[in-house]
Amino acid sequence: MNKNAIAVAILCACAGMAQAQSNVSIYGIVDVGLIKGTGSTLQEGKGDFNRLGFRGTEDLGDGLKANFRLEMRFLPDTGTTEANGQRPLFQGRSWVGLSGGFGAIRFGRDMTAVQDAASDFDPFGFQTVGAIDAITGNYMSDTSIASSGNRFSNAVFYSTPVMSGFQVNVSVATKEPLNGVPVVKSNPYSIATVYTGGPLAAMVGYERSTNEDTFLSLNGSYKVGTANLMASYSRFNRVLGVDERNWLVGADIAVATGAIKVGYGQIKPEGSGSDKQYSLGYWHTLSKRTNLYTDVSSRKPAAGKTNNTVDVGIHHTF
Amino acid sequence: MNKNAIAVAILCACAGMAQAQSNVSIYGIVDVGLIKGTGSTLQEGKGDFNRLGFRGTEDLGDGLKANFRLEMRFLPDTGTTEANGQRPLFQGRSWVGLSGGFGAIRFGRDMTAVQDAASDFDPFGFQTVGAIDAITGNYMSDTSIASSGNRFSNAVFYSTPVMSGFQVNVSVATKEPLNGVPVVKSNPYSIATVYTGGPLAAMVGYERSTNEDTFLSLNGSYKVGTANLMASYSRFNRVLGVDERNWLVGADIAVATGAIKVGYGQIKPEGSGSDKQYSLGYWHTLSKRTNLYTDVSSRKPAAGKTNNTVDVGIHHTF
Amino acid sequence: MNKNAIAVAILCACAGMAQAQSNVSIYGIVDVGLIKGTGSTLQEGKGDFNRLGFRGTEDLGDGLKANFRLEMRFLPDTGTTEANGQRPLFQGRSWVGLSGGFGAIRFGRDMTAVQDAASDFDPFGFQTVGAIDAITGNYMSDTSIASSGNRFSNAVFYSTPVMSGFQVNVSVATKEPLNGVPVVKSNPYSIATVYTGGPLAAMVGYERSTNEDTFLSLNGSYKVGTANLMASYSRFNRVLGVDERNWLVGADIAVATGAIKVGYGQIKPEGSGSDKQYSLGYWHTLSKRTNLYTDVSSRKPAAGKTNNTVDVGIHHTF
Repeated sequence: MNKNAIAVAILCACAGMAQAQSNVSIYGIVDVGLIKGTGSTLQEGKGDFNRLGFRGTEDLGDGLKANFRLEMRFLPDTGTTEANGQRPLFQGRSWVGLSGGFGAIRFGRDMTAVQDAASDFDPFGFQTVGAIDAITGNYMSDTSIASSGNRFSNAVFYSTPVMSGFQVNVSVATKEPLNGVPVVKSNPYSIATVYTGGPLAAMVGYERSTNEDTFLSLNGSYKVGTANLMASYSRFNRVLGVDERNWLVGADIAVATGAIKVGYGQIKPEGSGSDKQYSLGYWHTLSKRTNLYTDVSSRKPAAGKTNNTVDVGIHHTF
Repeated sequence: MNKNAIAVAILCACAGMAQAQSNVSIYGIVDVGLIKGTGSTLQEGKGDFNRLGFRGTEDLGDGLKANFRLEMRFLPDTGTTEANGQRPLFQGRSWVGLSGGFGAIRFGRDMTAVQDAASDFDPFGFQTVGAIDAITGNYMSDTSIASSGNRFSNAVFYSTPVMSGFQVNVSVATKEPLNGVPVVKSNPYSIATVYTGGPLAAMVGYERSTNEDTFLSLNGSYKVGTANLMASYSRFNRVLGVDERNWLVGADIAVATGAIKVGYGQIKPEGSGSDKQYSLGYWHTLSKRTNLYTDVSSRKPAAGKTNNTVDVGIHHTF
Repeated sequence: MNKNAIAVAILCACAGMAQAQSNVSIYGIVDVGLIKGTGSTLQEGKGDFNRLGFRGTEDLGDGLKANFRLEMRFLPDTGTTEANGQRPLFQGRSWVGLSGGFGAIRFGRDMTAVQDAASDFDPFGFQTVGAIDAITGNYMSDTSIASSGNRFSNAVFYSTPVMSGFQVNVSVATKEPLNGVPVVKSNPYSIATVYTGGPLAAMVGYERSTNEDTFLSLNGSYKVGTANLMASYSRFNRVLGVDERNWLVGADIAVATGAIKVGYGQIKPEGSGSDKQYSLGYWHTLSKRTNLYTDVSSRKPAAGKTNNTVDVGIHHTF
């Protein structure tokens, strides 16, 4: 054993020891921006959803692993949890589960299969004022105030292994009452089939919300040079009230210093005109973990005045 | 100094450096189960009390140490803090103190001496639907909604060193008002004497709650082969209302792949019949930190219908 | 490369690896004390403001760094967040920003420039019952219940580099409504110029609160031997209501085993008598991170009875 070998062995051992000291790692995002909309004063807000999370993985042998994740969400401009404290402490994710050759199963609270996959087809990834709302329109997986509209509590989440680029993700919630909402009549569920292969990515999703609304989502993206072109169509059928058809097109274009993002979308309620939105953004890379961004978005409702919004901010991942 | 000695020295130094980077370690439990009771829909819930904690120890020299512990509690199926956000952020534990040759003293919020020691005499350790409620019956150390019934806020906690297997734990709370409850007339306190020696363990405890109810608890366990046999008797005297006598017997039997748990208990309010509960569980070991469990429990109140409950879940410690 | 050099190299590498595992470090204070005031029962409380924080720094090259900080505050005697849960989860600090040759800029929530610097001129550092309230009197930077009175939410914080001992810190908040408070008419701001050089330290600060009150703060300290002598004067001008003049003198005297603290202050509302307070404390050092303290404070309002308060407690930093 030569000196270099000793060094390597010790490095590995050290890394191992450091890990053994803690079975949990901390991660998160802090993102603050200044935002100015038509007719309102300059405000401080966020681009991305701010989070502080705790996660861990334990190797159980034979490829089996136990995993958990607990994720707080908060508003960085005031320090409160989301919806001014009305949402759960671990609003983001709160689950424990197993993964292995069979795929992965988790129990608790998380984003639904469809909502989780949809953000890949918004050029803004649901972030900043640029985010094209038309990707899910006014659909909410869970309508209770204590939820964020795109999660299931009291649920089981299963993901198949990736096979030839395909993966199926299923989320099923129980029928138990939640946050004062009476007993759900049927199990809310969400199914998303995701494909990624070479330049192409696609997602077909369908879900039924806690109040039995249904949502169909068709999405695709294709990489041409440094540009990732995206398109999305969705159909939101309400049990009570007006249905919607939503669509968007957009692109995320890598440039030397960061990325340019463009998008256009429409939310069309049945029997009335469309709510139209177009957005343009430039995200400047400072490092793999940190970027500066500026975006402009214009939204013209079927009735009423156009609202233009511009933001500039900093996004930091840890 | 040979190469191996260098390696060992460096390993120790590395471990030390890693510790020096942080004076705090993170620990916790995430446990989610599916639960079905007589006459209710399938629900997602927990077996154990879910927690995310932060703790540290500082060596002050001469055997003296400064210690602290902050422990969040939460419901993993929805991500909220306990009692849907009505309980404190650090509901579990929130204290700082010193330990040394004299024992250990802590100041803040924690489980009372009696409640903390009692879980060792429930074969289910207060966990899962199997937990034998008769171990404390309807007694609550603190009746305010913001508490969990088995803790003191505003308290001093003292533990003697272990002497010949014996340890005495004392908790005394101040008389200050808490959570809108008017001033307490006398100091709530809790005393538990614990003995562990060979196969035998025992605990004698007495406490007076925040509303001056008193609770006497007598507990013993004895290991026979791989089985730990347990028995507990308690007397709950209310200032206002009906007194109770509670008892349970049970066993925690280690098997090759985990543990089998059985228990039977009765809660007997004075002047009426008993509330009877029996439980059976199998907890399957996946690792030292992770297990799967399934339990069934049947509870027959003195009046009214029997409620049968079954659970299956995963328990992960980090 | 000899063996020692290998050891050093590996140590550095190990430390690096341990850091690479996590981009965040945890810090905090847990401080619990027993407090007895005139006419009230013995209570458990705190000396310092208890906190659990998460912070990180990322090197972006060329001296530029990305920084963030998230800081919970809580009451250790009950485990709740401050103001019994009415304040934000990250009440202490919640910000992200950049630092470099230009100074440091942060976006989010933090103490105002003046409030942050003022604690250096109270011999008790705003801690324990000894803290001389006259340093800020009844002035509050933010009067909403959800704030702590000395912070801005929705703000930008800028600090110049230290030049010849001088540093200027500026905080400016947006005019957006917060916590049900209607739109602020003008931007709240805070400017503090701090000087430190040899035995001398000084701070001149001025700020305008969320409800347009103004606050002028003049502070100085001078080290003589092991004593740090302090003096502070402030003028609080209310938009509605009575103005105040406040002043204090005090000393923090290092002794072999810790520090002795003395202070005297007056809060004088215009047109009426002064509220007078004197305090004496001894803080006993157990380590760099841990101390025991005892303090006595006497407060005589212009009208009404004198209130004497004594505390004894433990303060632990991690």
